Amino acid sequence: MSDLVIWTYDWVPEGPRGFVRDLRLRWACEEAGLAYAVRTVPFDGRQVDHLARQPFGQIPFLSDGGLEIFESGAGLLHLARKSDALMPPDPVGEAKTLQWTIASLNSLEMVTVPWWFLEISGVADNRLTGWMTQRLGQVETVLSQREWLAADRFTVADLLMADVLRVPKVRAFGDRPASEAYVARVTARPSFMKAQADQIELFAAADATRRQTVSD
Amino acid sequence: MSDLVIWTYDWVPEGPRGFVRDLRLRWACEEAGLAYAVRTVPFDGRQVDHLARQPFGQIPFLSDGGLEIFESGAGLLHLARKSDALMPPDPVGEAKTLQWTIASLNSLEMVTVPWWFLEISGVADNRLTGWMTQRLGQVETVLSQREWLAADRFTVADLLMADVLRVPKVRAFGDRPASEAYVARVTARPSFMKAQADQIELFAAADATRRQTVSD
Repeated sequence: MSDLVIWTYDWVPEGPRGFVRDLRLRWACEEAGLAYAVRTVPFDGRQVDHLARQPFGQIPFLSDGGLEIFESGAGLLHLARKSDALMPPDPVGEAKTLQWTIASLNSLEMVTVPWWFLEISGVADNRLTGWMTQRLGQVETVLSQREWLAADRFTVADLLMADVLRVPKVRAFGDRPASEAYVARVTARPSFMKAQADQIELFAAADATRRQTVSD
Repeated sequence: MSDLVIWTYDWVPEGPRGFVRDLRLRWACEEAGLAYAVRTVPFDGRQVDHLARQPFGQIPFLSDGGLEIFESGAGLLHLARKSDALMPPDPVGEAKTLQWTIASLNSLEMVTVPWWFLEISGVADNRLTGWMTQRLGQVETVLSQREWLAADRFTVADLLMADVLRVPKVRAFGDRPASEAYVARVTARPSFMKAQADQIELFAAADATRRQTVSD
């Protein structure tokens, strides 16, 4: 039995399968060769049941022995401290990995998620599109000049940035060949493919035991 | 001459003074008693001039000897590793500080900044208001149950959360007495007040040497 436990929902609708954020932690463990178990909390009633453990009613959270940590970005940085496969151990490599991890969360995802939310809300005039165009263009410039974000090698920052950029509506936004090649390259990694397949399998297996009709 | 250098703009309009994010790094250095210098890059032409050093054309960035790091959240976590005043050194205290630092950036600010952006854009129906209400309500629940976010003491996570919550339109959103008391308590700290006063003084002093009329 591993000390590392990744907590996710026991089921989600088909739409988000392969994109639920426990995938980030599974993927990081796979990259680092860290043993881990996956356990679940109920999807139904999540806004009420989870608040004691996760004040925003979200998953994933990570157990590591006697320690529990929520926020996928925090879980990734916690795991990165355990393995050079996720973050170089030298001060400059660590700082650059930290920098690009936070940039993925706070300069990219802070735009892409609300933009996506407005898109699926069906607003006629998405006021975040200008900001989205600017930020994705800036990332395109960076990725047209180098293969990896930090330290000339794959790090947890690439894991996170690729996960932000691979969301279908984001990936399809504009013509950004360097970003597309980057997402294709990073998501071709065996660790990503295993993490994604495992997540999809868990949720699909739960369909059978669920009374409700699956809807998206 | 300190090894730590906080980079900010040489001038900003009056509106954002006291809120520009170099304040986060100044405040952290003050809390930790870390010596630092402040240096500037031109505000005019920032979208062009800064891209070589900061691909999103933003400030602040931090120099630490031979290392340079951008993203205020990354700078804060970098500084937190230098001083127990910002983050407890034990694994659980460190994990909880990391968790709430990332929550401030990715569960709170990811909502408050785009919400604020839509508000000042003058949209008639701000579609992010429901999400804003939910998230700020969840933070209110947490803050009504404890004084500090992590480890029963002030950490860099409180610095960041308070900085997210003190933005005037966010602070005035709804009736959230525990959050208001928290913001008032954290921003009454001498280190915050010094950092804020120093920032305002720098930008005000630049007015005199600037040809353009100051406008907000």
